[in-house]
Amino acid sequence: MYSDFKIIKTTSPKSRPDQNNLGFGKYFTDHMFIMDYTEGKGWHDPRIVPYGPLPLEPSTMVLHYGQAIFEGLKAYKAKDGSIQLFRPYKNMERINISNTRMCIPQIDPETCVRAVKAIVDTDRDWIPTAEGTSLYIRPFIFATDAYLGVKPSSTYKFMIIMSPVGAYYPQGINPVKIYVESKYVRAVKGGTGFAKTPGNYASSIKAQMEAYEKGYIQVLWLDGIERKYIEEVGSMNVFFKINGEIITPSLEGSILAGITRDSSIFLLKKWGYKVTERRISIDEIFTAHKNSALEEAFGTGTAAVISPIGELNRDGNSIIINNNEIGPTSMNLYNTITGIQSGTVKDEAGWIEKV
Amino acid sequence: MYSDFKIIKTTSPKSRPDQNNLGFGKYFTDHMFIMDYTEGKGWHDPRIVPYGPLPLEPSTMVLHYGQAIFEGLKAYKAKDGSIQLFRPYKNMERINISNTRMCIPQIDPETCVRAVKAIVDTDRDWIPTAEGTSLYIRPFIFATDAYLGVKPSSTYKFMIIMSPVGAYYPQGINPVKIYVESKYVRAVKGGTGFAKTPGNYASSIKAQMEAYEKGYIQVLWLDGIERKYIEEVGSMNVFFKINGEIITPSLEGSILAGITRDSSIFLLKKWGYKVTERRISIDEIFTAHKNSALEEAFGTGTAAVISPIGELNRDGNSIIINNNEIGPTSMNLYNTITGIQSGTVKDEAGWIEKV
Repeated sequence: MYSDFKIIKTTSPKSRPDQNNLGFGKYFTDHMFIMDYTEGKGWHDPRIVPYGPLPLEPSTMVLHYGQAIFEGLKAYKAKDGSIQLFRPYKNMERINISNTRMCIPQIDPETCVRAVKAIVDTDRDWIPTAEGTSLYIRPFIFATDAYLGVKPSSTYKFMIIMSPVGAYYPQGINPVKIYVESKYVRAVKGGTGFAKTPGNYASSIKAQMEAYEKGYIQVLWLDGIERKYIEEVGSMNVFFKINGEIITPSLEGSILAGITRDSSIFLLKKWGYKVTERRISIDEIFTAHKNSALEEAFGTGTAAVISPIGELNRDGNSIIINNNEIGPTSMNLYNTITGIQSGTVKDEAGWIEKV
Repeated sequence: MYSDFKIIKTTSPKSRPDQNNLGFGKYFTDHMFIMDYTEGKGWHDPRIVPYGPLPLEPSTMVLHYGQAIFEGLKAYKAKDGSIQLFRPYKNMERINISNTRMCIPQIDPETCVRAVKAIVDTDRDWIPTAEGTSLYIRPFIFATDAYLGVKPSSTYKFMIIMSPVGAYYPQGINPVKIYVESKYVRAVKGGTGFAKTPGNYASSIKAQMEAYEKGYIQVLWLDGIERKYIEEVGSMNVFFKINGEIITPSLEGSILAGITRDSSIFLLKKWGYKVTERRISIDEIFTAHKNSALEEAFGTGTAAVISPIGELNRDGNSIIINNNEIGPTSMNLYNTITGIQSGTVKDEAGWIEKV
């Protein structure tokens, strides 16, 4: 079906992990996709090969200067046995936005989507079917020059690896406790916050760990300049429902343009909500809560889809949102998006690509 | 001499590169140092092995979330044949500052310096002797868990690789043209600017390339909040001499605490200069130039040691510093530091460690 890619099948398939205990990103399928880039030659030699270690020179640029980007999407097995991808072209368009910021050469989105379909097709038996499970797909590109000068690499690898995953949050879609971060900054305008690049995640780990030690599952990031405007929650976009209006931070260069964010905005508007993308301060959220106007808060992301926020703690002051229960809007979004993804809800927007 | 480390010597030594055409970070010696970290076990199994590729799982955490740090220092062969390291303990102390920010476990600086000495000793024949050349030493640590969750890795590798290098800037110590960056931001307080971590370098490449296309060798970074205070030049610290006073940006969380910066401050004070570490705005520099008070400007870093700035361009307005010639203070610093490093100037401060 995807015979334009060279495929070398494994001769020693792995045993499958327990579907009820998958976790996230721990197990990997039998194959991987690789394509190389060489300056002057472009992207070349796309191939599917048995999953296994890469021999990398210790001077490989990505290990020293982090020139890399990645994406994340999921494949689902529908009740009729067909395999569904959720908006894969959006991921592949975003790759090129990330590539531009990180000085990585552009890549053809159409080829990338075909590559995703080909590798999913090759390992189709790996897609788990238990409730809430899926096959997580991780495309990534990294600089491979064996060279220690700080400059764009002249060679890269584009790869796709895949992992059967359970629910992202161990608590499922129960509301999570979030700590409002005042010490660390995720990104600032002029930096790389809108690109999906490893450095953004590396710099976030410390805040996450300190919040975790205080009993919170993640942090709410504030802007790096005034330290008052809300940016993201953990590695998700964030939404608030205040007096029936849905508000989410506008994309101003420090925030990732999430695909679940985009899908949520689309659905909410379709359902008749007023959706506003604008700067929103943490003070406004706390004031709205005081006035009983803060109805819901939730994160959106590929891994969790929708993650309701039950508690926000800012410098020791906690507010409880919607009695620490999932609100109706969050629940509707979760049910609708996961339903479209798994094939139980009609895909009216044309978001599903079949493999 | 360093028999506490296991050493496996190569059986196929490489041919040596032309000493007059080394460049920077292109050639690597015959051996490398590796030490592993495993949660619960700590750092273990330090060893010197033949230089060669590492088999890394495609899910290795550093490739996705960039949890990593590095250092850079140099070894020099003195006229008497002895091998000199410049302030290696400072690098190894800084590793732990970077480690703390990036949630990487602490490492024993004494062991790291011994590791540097052992690997330099093993490849001592690789140290070039031509004027301006040295053996560049790159210690680095990266996260090795084969796992896609965003959290601190439970396993790491500490490695040291080495590269015989020529002069960092092809122009030698001639003054360079620098573009004052107004669009991109290197780092912001609360981020990772003070840590030596790949993400800082990845995010800097775009600005560097755009400056290069305009005819400038590097950028002068301004702060990410007010976009007026000077931070670094390229990947170097920066100094200005105004009316005889030496001014360098103070370390406030977004700037790397450079070892050449520290050495330069020490020497300048010893020589009787007034040295001030404070916030300094780009406007102040341009005003000082207008008033004929700006005498010199230079960058400091391990790779270049001292790099005089001959021209600063801000939004199309250029100023020429010291007639685009090397100033006496820059020259003295360069001669003194490189002299101490190579053994021709007396090491009064006790900066040299012999291998």
